[in-house]
Amino acid sequence: MPPHPAVSATRVAVRALLDSSHRTGPVAVACSGGADSLALAAATAHVATRRGIDVHGLVVDHGLQPGSAEVAARAAEQLRELGCAEVRVLDVEVTGPGGTEAAARRARYAALDAARPGGLVLLGHTLDDQAETVLLGLGRGSGPRSIAGMRPLDPPWGRPLLDVRRATTEAACAAQGLVPWRDPHNADERFTRVRLRTAVLPLLEEVLQGGVAPALARTARQLREDVDALDGLAEELLPLVAAGPELDAAALAGHPGALRRRVLRSWLRARGVPQITDAQLRAADALVADWTGQGGPALPGDFVLRRTRGRLLLTAAQRGVANG
Amino acid sequence: MPPHPAVSATRVAVRALLDSSHRTGPVAVACSGGADSLALAAATAHVATRRGIDVHGLVVDHGLQPGSAEVAARAAEQLRELGCAEVRVLDVEVTGPGGTEAAARRARYAALDAARPGGLVLLGHTLDDQAETVLLGLGRGSGPRSIAGMRPLDPPWGRPLLDVRRATTEAACAAQGLVPWRDPHNADERFTRVRLRTAVLPLLEEVLQGGVAPALARTARQLREDVDALDGLAEELLPLVAAGPELDAAALAGHPGALRRRVLRSWLRARGVPQITDAQLRAADALVADWTGQGGPALPGDFVLRRTRGRLLLTAAQRGVANG
Repeated sequence: MPPHPAVSATRVAVRALLDSSHRTGPVAVACSGGADSLALAAATAHVATRRGIDVHGLVVDHGLQPGSAEVAARAAEQLRELGCAEVRVLDVEVTGPGGTEAAARRARYAALDAARPGGLVLLGHTLDDQAETVLLGLGRGSGPRSIAGMRPLDPPWGRPLLDVRRATTEAACAAQGLVPWRDPHNADERFTRVRLRTAVLPLLEEVLQGGVAPALARTARQLREDVDALDGLAEELLPLVAAGPELDAAALAGHPGALRRRVLRSWLRARGVPQITDAQLRAADALVADWTGQGGPALPGDFVLRRTRGRLLLTAAQRGVANG
Repeated sequence: MPPHPAVSATRVAVRALLDSSHRTGPVAVACSGGADSLALAAATAHVATRRGIDVHGLVVDHGLQPGSAEVAARAAEQLRELGCAEVRVLDVEVTGPGGTEAAARRARYAALDAARPGGLVLLGHTLDDQAETVLLGLGRGSGPRSIAGMRPLDPPWGRPLLDVRRATTEAACAAQGLVPWRDPHNADERFTRVRLRTAVLPLLEEVLQGGVAPALARTARQLREDVDALDGLAEELLPLVAAGPELDAAALAGHPGALRRRVLRSWLRARGVPQITDAQLRAADALVADWTGQGGPALPGDFVLRRTRGRLLLTAAQRGVANG
């Protein structure tokens, strides 16, 4: 009897990701016990067994909810039953800036990175997670990169299920007799992501007459490709126009703005200028492409940028002179 | 007494657009009588008078609502009072495929293009319109281009107010004693755009804690720059790798995917292949970058694409053979 279509879908996705990674050796699966990562673990165990590679199960206990140790122990047991060669529960401490969600993510990724057996760590993010990530990025307005979403392969991380719907992972669990844990945080309306999932996306679906989550995921993929292409071209261009504290503005000027600004940002960062705003970057770019004799922008880290004889020169400000 | 800040904002925006266009001669303003285009007309009349150029007022009567002729006549009167050198009401017939909104847009742009005095036609789209356009494009999922939004300068069209909020155009009208027409279509929930405006964007604003419309507009601008850069690079690359029905796959293979697929799309289109899907484009690209001896994709318009000795060859299918 062929497997349930939902089970097939998860296995096909895991196979495709492992193939695209061109890696051999053991693979780890991060599993919370929820439907997405449980379906991922089952698919990975199935595929890996047939390929003769070991699967390591990793369960992170964030210690944020009462009973989290029991939830972790139950997930670990399920991973063992699925045939994982080794299973570990990683206790992490969620601290630091940026709110609980961000701190938990940092702690989780750090623990998984430290515990992985050397190869990829597969994560259970689905197409629906991707759509939520794109919407979150849109709200920040920090450019194409922030709405390009998560990458399927971003070593050591692998996300085989980014084209698989959440409903499919639920169905795959049910078809395999796996009982997923229902994280109460997934229904907690205090979390922005939960409200995007439960309120914004359903309304968008209704108003735009369906297909919104796949549309967001498709757009994210194409954006990643565009961003990657431009980042790569800028990386090739930088050494051709920059040498230490000098940059050949006249040579850079012939390139399109999206490339010029990427080259300028990389160059300034490599010279020790801290994170600059889009407005500062555009002022620096105006020295290159729209120069009418104006002075350069004030840059963070007490740097001075100016144009002289067709070249940009970055120098440390002499205090009392730069502002004089 | 200095003008009201909202009035200033509209005038600054019109000045900036006219400067960036590097054009002289008369300019036209399309005006429905609504707050956005009425504020635009007032700002344009003000700026143009000081620059000694004529403003032509163009009012489109779509004939879709009872009393539309009176609305158009009233807008035309307001344009005359603002000092437009010439004012015309353009009667259009809204027909053709794609729903009323799309048909009305086609008819409107065609009439404005035919009636314009030679230079730019300024349109009243605001930052809020831009945000709605980005969300609509996201819902379609047809890639970065569809969420890159409207261009400020897209001759013969100019959109000076794309960085100005709708609330500012309302305030500018009020401050100048202009009474805008309230289009009942703007409150008609049968229109997708109206529901985005009245339901989706306010909910997104609430969930993401504000700033969503400006964030969408900022993202759109950066996307346009990325898309323009890649389109330009692909345009330069195409003649270097393609010659008639042949394309040098080996030479194209060294370029990033976002560039390869743009070059392929342009080449196929120039060779007469009708609009192709993303899946077909990726299959064609696989012949270039991931070739393992596979055959080419079936392309619309009965074309056959195949790879031989490092080159792609596009030929018309011989019926009965191509499908054999």
